[in-house]
Amino acid sequence: MQYPLTATPDLNSEQSARARQLQLTKPPGALGRLEEIACWFAGRQQREIPEPLEPAITVFAGDHGVVAEGISAFPSVVTGEMVRNFARGGAAINVLSRSIGAHLTVVNAGVASPLNDVTGIVHANIRPGTANLLQGPAMTRHEAERAVELGRARAVADIQTGANLLIAGEMGIGNTTPSACLICALTGAAPEDVVGIGTGVDAAGRARKVEVVRAALKRVNAHPPADGIGWLAELGGIEIAAMAGYYLEAAVSGVPALLDGFISSAAALVAHQLSPAVTDWLIASHLSFENGHRIALERLGLTPLIDLQMRLGEGSGAAVVVPLLQAAISLHAEMATFAEAGVSNKDD
Amino acid sequence: MQYPLTATPDLNSEQSARARQLQLTKPPGALGRLEEIACWFAGRQQREIPEPLEPAITVFAGDHGVVAEGISAFPSVVTGEMVRNFARGGAAINVLSRSIGAHLTVVNAGVASPLNDVTGIVHANIRPGTANLLQGPAMTRHEAERAVELGRARAVADIQTGANLLIAGEMGIGNTTPSACLICALTGAAPEDVVGIGTGVDAAGRARKVEVVRAALKRVNAHPPADGIGWLAELGGIEIAAMAGYYLEAAVSGVPALLDGFISSAAALVAHQLSPAVTDWLIASHLSFENGHRIALERLGLTPLIDLQMRLGEGSGAAVVVPLLQAAISLHAEMATFAEAGVSNKDD
Repeated sequence: MQYPLTATPDLNSEQSARARQLQLTKPPGALGRLEEIACWFAGRQQREIPEPLEPAITVFAGDHGVVAEGISAFPSVVTGEMVRNFARGGAAINVLSRSIGAHLTVVNAGVASPLNDVTGIVHANIRPGTANLLQGPAMTRHEAERAVELGRARAVADIQTGANLLIAGEMGIGNTTPSACLICALTGAAPEDVVGIGTGVDAAGRARKVEVVRAALKRVNAHPPADGIGWLAELGGIEIAAMAGYYLEAAVSGVPALLDGFISSAAALVAHQLSPAVTDWLIASHLSFENGHRIALERLGLTPLIDLQMRLGEGSGAAVVVPLLQAAISLHAEMATFAEAGVSNKDD
Repeated sequence: MQYPLTATPDLNSEQSARARQLQLTKPPGALGRLEEIACWFAGRQQREIPEPLEPAITVFAGDHGVVAEGISAFPSVVTGEMVRNFARGGAAINVLSRSIGAHLTVVNAGVASPLNDVTGIVHANIRPGTANLLQGPAMTRHEAERAVELGRARAVADIQTGANLLIAGEMGIGNTTPSACLICALTGAAPEDVVGIGTGVDAAGRARKVEVVRAALKRVNAHPPADGIGWLAELGGIEIAAMAGYYLEAAVSGVPALLDGFISSAAALVAHQLSPAVTDWLIASHLSFENGHRIALERLGLTPLIDLQMRLGEGSGAAVVVPLLQAAISLHAEMATFAEAGVSNKDD
């Protein structure tokens, strides 16, 4: 499977934006990371002053055979129930999408429960949940490729709505376990450093998760896959594969993508394995409460903007950060320069 | 000088809000600090589901005689120039106020440059800048009291606009030096741990600031003041005193105040010295890049929500955080419960 080349950020626009920042009526650097953000978007939008953000959020849902191992605090049926909640507008990501004016799409990528009667979502079920990754491959290589292509197609659809900021979220009971497997596989980190409490397992549940991840890695490492698609097939989730495709397409199309939390970072690691320059188009939103998120972001070379100890998924951490990104761009666009305001500069 | 009692948060409403959080369609605790925020506002607004935030921002401006000691990267004239920039809408706080829909007021509390021709600001100049606090008291006790009362009156005015979230900002070239003095005096911290680069002094400038703060503290500690007003008179700034009054009035009126950065925390420490329960009504926004901010917040028992390495003042760090607070309240108000959404709860 070959991916087209990713787009290249415009370093001239980024440089012009940095020069502009030095002229705005504030001490240089006083807006901290908000200055970096504005310049980063300048490079991606190829203009010294970026346009206001128009975010789109796509939530991919899928189920996980590994739930049979008792690694989640909630049963698999909740995945489908939450998709229905999304469709009715009652979940956290619905509230946050409304508050930031984001276009929200929900995709049934691989939910086990029947959802044919649900309207207002994208029906693209690749298989009704993965197989148990402890016992064997989570899915076939072909299914993993189809899931990646689904994610790419949804990114294209989001860009066609006019979005200039792409957010992928997920819903999938049990999906911190495949994410932990992928993060361990792609960073070399140890399961005990990566596995967290997910939706809220107790200490015994977490210990069981660590053992499941360790055993699954042992199974796969006997014949390690050659690429990210192979890792997705062995240890992934359908929604995780779709998110990886979504990030790949963002980079190919040259549209920034804002990462969410732990599961999002696992998908980004897969995308990075398939196409390393994808990280030119990724920005990290929050640091999740889930243990291994920091490890995944470090490998991606990304620094999260906030840490509110969130661990919900759905794209919620990313959505919460959008107003901070928009503030950075508004300040960059609207503040007066020293010359415009008649304010004495430090170097005058 | 006696202050009326502060209002008392409603712990029943806060408790009801916590119970509601457990019913919303997410794993308990998965929204991290956003859950705490919603419950905190429930207690302050005395209702299980807080109303949307209506922020007001008042920026107090004043000059500082201690600038004569070479402790700032910018000259005092910039204070007045920036007030003109505020009046024309070109500063960071103007941009941020517009973006969050906040009512913005600018108060000339003690600027040295003439500003009588500036329209659209509150003219309440108590004195044209403080005296040099290295040589003697920054102002008289009576002036400090008048500045505190000015801040209280401005909080009352902001509440009368319908605001349910109060933000004080400041503009005052040199004001990280009096703030460092106050933080050292009121926490016992050492000048080298509290003094930072302010608007951007170099290492030699910072070393000079440390020596100025050390010498000023030595001067005052020979006959230490009996209360916060005395500390303000000796080592304060006019805008810092006004901010202290603003926070006191917030607590007396029972309206939450969102702190900004380093200077804001110095004012809050003074308010806390005058009336310890003021912290029931304070919430910390960001952690400033300025060294001693963490020390001041720890003494106040407050944990900042974000750290973007900002060090601008004006209320900018607080304004940037308002959408996060609003997101917390919107999630609390609008998310469906497990029962409403027909989603299986963990405990079912």
